[in-house]
Amino acid sequence: MSALNIPKSSFPRVIIIGGGFAGVALAKELSKKEVQVVLLDKNNYHTFQPLLYQVATGGLEPDSIAYPIRKILQDYPNFFFRLANVLEVKTEEKQLETNIGTVKYDYLVMATGAETNFFGNKEIEENGMVMKSIPESLNLRSLILENFEQALLTDDLHQRDALMNFVIVGGGPTGVELAGALAEIKKGILPKDYPDLDTRRAEINLVQSGDRILKEMSDKASKKAEDFLEELGVHVWKNTRVLSYDGKVATTKTDLSFECATLIWAAGVKGASIKGLDAQELLVRGNRLKVNEFNQVVGHDHIFAIGDVAGMITEKTPSGHPMMAQPAIQQGKNLGFNLVRLLENKPLKPFVYNDKGSMATVGRNKAVVDLENYKFQGVFAWFVWMFVHLFFLIGFRNRVIVFINWVYNYVRFDREARLIIRPYQRDYDRFR
Amino acid sequence: MSALNIPKSSFPRVIIIGGGFAGVALAKELSKKEVQVVLLDKNNYHTFQPLLYQVATGGLEPDSIAYPIRKILQDYPNFFFRLANVLEVKTEEKQLETNIGTVKYDYLVMATGAETNFFGNKEIEENGMVMKSIPESLNLRSLILENFEQALLTDDLHQRDALMNFVIVGGGPTGVELAGALAEIKKGILPKDYPDLDTRRAEINLVQSGDRILKEMSDKASKKAEDFLEELGVHVWKNTRVLSYDGKVATTKTDLSFECATLIWAAGVKGASIKGLDAQELLVRGNRLKVNEFNQVVGHDHIFAIGDVAGMITEKTPSGHPMMAQPAIQQGKNLGFNLVRLLENKPLKPFVYNDKGSMATVGRNKAVVDLENYKFQGVFAWFVWMFVHLFFLIGFRNRVIVFINWVYNYVRFDREARLIIRPYQRDYDRFR
Repeated sequence: MSALNIPKSSFPRVIIIGGGFAGVALAKELSKKEVQVVLLDKNNYHTFQPLLYQVATGGLEPDSIAYPIRKILQDYPNFFFRLANVLEVKTEEKQLETNIGTVKYDYLVMATGAETNFFGNKEIEENGMVMKSIPESLNLRSLILENFEQALLTDDLHQRDALMNFVIVGGGPTGVELAGALAEIKKGILPKDYPDLDTRRAEINLVQSGDRILKEMSDKASKKAEDFLEELGVHVWKNTRVLSYDGKVATTKTDLSFECATLIWAAGVKGASIKGLDAQELLVRGNRLKVNEFNQVVGHDHIFAIGDVAGMITEKTPSGHPMMAQPAIQQGKNLGFNLVRLLENKPLKPFVYNDKGSMATVGRNKAVVDLENYKFQGVFAWFVWMFVHLFFLIGFRNRVIVFINWVYNYVRFDREARLIIRPYQRDYDRFR
Repeated sequence: MSALNIPKSSFPRVIIIGGGFAGVALAKELSKKEVQVVLLDKNNYHTFQPLLYQVATGGLEPDSIAYPIRKILQDYPNFFFRLANVLEVKTEEKQLETNIGTVKYDYLVMATGAETNFFGNKEIEENGMVMKSIPESLNLRSLILENFEQALLTDDLHQRDALMNFVIVGGGPTGVELAGALAEIKKGILPKDYPDLDTRRAEINLVQSGDRILKEMSDKASKKAEDFLEELGVHVWKNTRVLSYDGKVATTKTDLSFECATLIWAAGVKGASIKGLDAQELLVRGNRLKVNEFNQVVGHDHIFAIGDVAGMITEKTPSGHPMMAQPAIQQGKNLGFNLVRLLENKPLKPFVYNDKGSMATVGRNKAVVDLENYKFQGVFAWFVWMFVHLFFLIGFRNRVIVFINWVYNYVRFDREARLIIRPYQRDYDRFR
């Protein structure tokens, strides 16, 4: 296998694994600095993860929430991107093994993000759907639409109900936003698209293990989001866990049972570690790499971790920072600053998280926003949610296209990207 | 396998196979008429095929040239859509076999369109790329981008050139438009995205069997389009045929040989016939169903064919009408009119093709337009091309999104959808 063909440089080489919020923020910060930056990602694009659920529900095209990484780096000299899967970190040799060859680093930054955590449940992993990447979201989009096409073909009411029954596991922002979007589709689109199907029987169930949804947010936000969901007809089940799903029936710890063709697992994520940096002593809860206040991985002076994969345990953050865009971006920026300081032998600046608040949307005119001193819900919150998301989306074109889609969807109560571009091959015989 | 669950009706049942230009035009024409219409398609969306090359070259997102068929039919009573592959037509029983069951028809309309014609060359079918559907265009998009990522990884100049060498077979509108788009990418995007690669060595070859490209158009248009392509650096090879492509080297009848990682076959299409209606006596040149002037399939009073799959041989059209959107739309409309006449036992109106002209674009400010009395090329032609395409695109949202993309791409010399959403798995070892 050929090597990565990165030219030699007199500058030290910083390899960043992952072009998510953290990796991109760091790369931008290092522009025009005296380092050679190599960014590796398994995709050639940055994904704006907070809007994946809108791709899955036909509200947005995938291309408008993705942005070519090469374009982000275009104006920076000494920047190199390689499309690669990193297979192993060899810390002794300061070297990475990837699917396209090996490469040496002077400094390594793990910005690998998070992956779905099934907590060891293989059955759910096999039969459930997830929504952490664009292809996964497109698969889910296809499956949702295919289910309704299938439901038309059966006279067995039981089977038809199962095809129109959705179980979403996890009451965090992803689960809540997806549940709201599905409920809006049920109300606004299904009756028009499937006049020959009694789509009122479609059900959206949201299962949350704790005693409230959006548990990272204020009580007020939780309560209001739950009200919004109920207004939309979503069934919210709290204080229970989904234990099994064989592709047909989901059961919970409290002996609920849902016959459903679609179970979406949004109940947990874990840091995406890589072989060579996955020893138990390096990890904290949630499979995150234990880092000090400079995002340095414990015991590895030349390796850093930022974003979701970084577990910075402090008094204020006993289980690390929230796995969201804001801490990732801020850590990326801070590390960019620090890497230059490190090369100049200057003291590093500890990371301090500036919590700008959090928000979630449930649907049309329905969102909840928690700022430090001001918590609000409803129409205004929804506008704030939209503009914050537009602001953080990378790329002018993407912002315009997303904005137009939102205006169109809002005015027309519609979602025109309900397209099965590539079918998701589900074995429907199990429902017969 | 369950049946298609189409409710019984006192109206006669017209089944349309295919939701392309012809099928959709017919369906719209039959709205509010006293027929039950069942539209079958293997996709749940209509594809605007003339812009597939822009999806393949990262200029447009796939979702903006697709439109949900169910939405097109939303307002029509007595309309039923089923997502189905039709496997066989049983003309005796007036019945279709599909992958989701069987269904009876009173009238059948074949609007199945065209598929790629490899003229029996299995090797090219296996190793070449095509661009007749959205997934195929996305595969081509992925492969083009993957080739450049691969080219970065090799020091073997020979191999690198092969990865950056594109051979497009067929000098019709598809081949010409694709060649122009690739040339623009070479000029505007590759040097910025791949500063560490000598992308000037990338080559775009267009191979045409006849003595001019765009042979359906005027000599003037052909000549000018060729000039435009040469300005853009495309190599146009005329009077030769590609005979073989093993995935590595393409050879022609005139002993040319191209070492190339990508060969795009745009050299022929043929009518997409279906078992049961594929007997030799039913077909004319290009595998099209022989129809009379009412689009009735010869010998089958209850079966019609419209659009690309219809071969209406007249004095003016010795090999049928051009396989383009215009004849398809017009035949769909005329057949809609005629079906109602037929049910009322009134005489039918023969189809007369109103040739509104044809056009093709080569790139920025470069297009050719042939109207009956006026042929023009250049900037104005390019604007005409754009507005005609926007006009025929289905859906207000699609038009706005495509328009914005075009304005953005024009102003910024850019194509931001250069995303490998799903990798196209090519075995690159053959180039080593």
